[in-house]
Amino acid sequence: MEAPPISWLMSLALERPNLISLAAGFTDSETLPLEAAGRLLEGILADTRAGRAALQYGSTPGMPELRRLSAGRVQSLDSAAGTDAVGDAYDPGRAVITHGSQQLLHLLAECLLDPGDVVLVEDPTYFVFLGIAQAFGVRCHAVKLTPGGLDLADLERTLEELKHTGAIKKLKFFYSVAYHQNPTGITSPLDNKARALELLRRYERAAGHPIYFVEDAAYRELCFGPRTVPSALSLGKAARRVIYAGTYSKPFSTGARVGFGLLPEPVLTAVLRAKGNQDFGTSTLIQALLCRALETGEYDRHVRRIQVRYEEKARVMIEAMKAHFPPGVAWAEPSGGLYIWAHAKPSRATGTGSKLFKAALDQEVLYVPGALCYAEDPRRRKPNHQMRISFGSASVEDIRRGIQRLGAALRSLE
Amino acid sequence: MEAPPISWLMSLALERPNLISLAAGFTDSETLPLEAAGRLLEGILADTRAGRAALQYGSTPGMPELRRLSAGRVQSLDSAAGTDAVGDAYDPGRAVITHGSQQLLHLLAECLLDPGDVVLVEDPTYFVFLGIAQAFGVRCHAVKLTPGGLDLADLERTLEELKHTGAIKKLKFFYSVAYHQNPTGITSPLDNKARALELLRRYERAAGHPIYFVEDAAYRELCFGPRTVPSALSLGKAARRVIYAGTYSKPFSTGARVGFGLLPEPVLTAVLRAKGNQDFGTSTLIQALLCRALETGEYDRHVRRIQVRYEEKARVMIEAMKAHFPPGVAWAEPSGGLYIWAHAKPSRATGTGSKLFKAALDQEVLYVPGALCYAEDPRRRKPNHQMRISFGSASVEDIRRGIQRLGAALRSLE
Repeated sequence: MEAPPISWLMSLALERPNLISLAAGFTDSETLPLEAAGRLLEGILADTRAGRAALQYGSTPGMPELRRLSAGRVQSLDSAAGTDAVGDAYDPGRAVITHGSQQLLHLLAECLLDPGDVVLVEDPTYFVFLGIAQAFGVRCHAVKLTPGGLDLADLERTLEELKHTGAIKKLKFFYSVAYHQNPTGITSPLDNKARALELLRRYERAAGHPIYFVEDAAYRELCFGPRTVPSALSLGKAARRVIYAGTYSKPFSTGARVGFGLLPEPVLTAVLRAKGNQDFGTSTLIQALLCRALETGEYDRHVRRIQVRYEEKARVMIEAMKAHFPPGVAWAEPSGGLYIWAHAKPSRATGTGSKLFKAALDQEVLYVPGALCYAEDPRRRKPNHQMRISFGSASVEDIRRGIQRLGAALRSLE
Repeated sequence: MEAPPISWLMSLALERPNLISLAAGFTDSETLPLEAAGRLLEGILADTRAGRAALQYGSTPGMPELRRLSAGRVQSLDSAAGTDAVGDAYDPGRAVITHGSQQLLHLLAECLLDPGDVVLVEDPTYFVFLGIAQAFGVRCHAVKLTPGGLDLADLERTLEELKHTGAIKKLKFFYSVAYHQNPTGITSPLDNKARALELLRRYERAAGHPIYFVEDAAYRELCFGPRTVPSALSLGKAARRVIYAGTYSKPFSTGARVGFGLLPEPVLTAVLRAKGNQDFGTSTLIQALLCRALETGEYDRHVRRIQVRYEEKARVMIEAMKAHFPPGVAWAEPSGGLYIWAHAKPSRATGTGSKLFKAALDQEVLYVPGALCYAEDPRRRKPNHQMRISFGSASVEDIRRGIQRLGAALRSLE
């Protein structure tokens, strides 16, 4: 297993106290729900029955109440987004509570992937998923991502290629960060997801097994508008191939580490067996906290608060970019999430060995080089002129100063 | 992956409300530290700095303070046990905080084992470890366990066999539940562990790689006496092959799910990379809780309380066994842990398909059939006349009634 590049970026940030990190995917510290979490935990532990349940082993799938609330929440979001949101896809019996949605991604890899297998990913995609694929000896084929969602023609081309070479028999799933994508911020419309699922289904005969669509909804609740796009679970019969990965980490508390999945069989059974071996089940104390936060409405109140907060931080970042970045740097304004995906001019390399990266470090500012977000896929050259810039954890003041510094680094090389 | 038999036992217990389960490895609910946990969490979340750290992402190895306290605690236990307890083995830099020690066992399997590999286990051993080995496609070779510790002659014979067949090249580690073993209750003396390590070392040349000794200390703090046996970390140079798995789950709160490991390189680096992919790091909220419990002395006070409690529950169970079991059933009195390992007469099968298991269910009492604790090892017949009986979670009253029922089941077949 290779050291993930993000470890190096994180250690850089720790070693340099004056560095402003716009690299980390950490969330806003100032709005963390300390008061609410304290009050909710006090309530749980003051109640003998709830307190004992919170400090004793639970079951591997998770607390029944939290499974019900989690399935119900996805159903509500899909219903509010204008779909019927009915059907088995929202059955709490399909839910598993995990230590962050990251654990679910790892469990899916453990259960569905063998060395030499193939997965499809968006181009670019979430770099930790690329690390998991590498650790499991799996090849990632990259499918173009456009502002309107997945490039379906490129998906079909890729599937045809895999069929032609026979590698389709090793294709297990498509991994999509469906909301405010990490790193691009793109949200795939429902119709786009429906057509991707339809395409995957058409190649199942050649594959000889189901091809799943993993819908990673980690950033879904960090949206700036009132409504989100419906999930692929709302697509009726097609939902039987959808594996939905949700989380309470980013919207409530990354330190609590509570995520969840809604999974079809036989994936659910396999994931539960693997999770039983991994940790028996998610910490009941943090499950009880999220359960109480959802039941009391604290979770909803908190989510509304941070939606406003992140929208404001994104606005500050965009204003600073407009003020300090040289002409030729382009970006799309995010509608949610934690990131802005900035494109320097194509000749301006941004990688860890580049002049820009060094100039940025000299200015005491850190970004994620775009190339880290691209799978190793020999079918195309990796773009190397982009940056993932996060407005998640830095303070408003540090966002302004950090962007000013990054602008200075960019200008110093003009 | 097969369904683990324990899942079936657990679902049995859930389906039958009148059933007294002496099967589960759950801990005592009445002594769970509700009041202390509530107070400590309140203190953490009332403090802006500590509260933010507890609700934000941490680092993959865990909170530096908890790593320091964990390494220091093992060092203190070893020192109190009469060893020098010095050296790199206790360096906090070797510590990783995990979601229970179970996660560490799984991470070790992920990092050290390939399909077709071999591990050595005690005969009998912790059945969930057998499930992990099965999930990873690894063969377990069973080494006899005696009341005085590992049968070193059998270990040597097994190593010779592996060398003879060439399978030694696939042997990665010995897995030992070193304290109040699950299921037998046996604690291996330091000298026994030292000689086992020495034997393993002698076969490293034939193996072509290090052979590690995984010392699972899950039950170490649940001892009835004031001192524990020193860990293999106290063995000086030999400690460089020791992987120590500790936990705060059983001694403090199984619901919090905080365990830890002390690992030599290069295992530590590999485990940290795998953990980074699995969950980025253990929930900081539950780490902060354990940190505070250790710092304030609450942890020590709680451990002393439950040591007395479990000793009392073990005494009640033994008395009931003496009163209700027919002659011919034998057991050793435990010196800690959660279990009594009872031997029926050799002709009395105890397995899930046996007359006794059915008679026990008719009496509404559940035990763990001994055969589940034995590895699939064709070199010997699996004993099938033992039972693991737990005094951990049942109330004192249920221990008395449960043993009375199990006695009635045993007597009904005389």
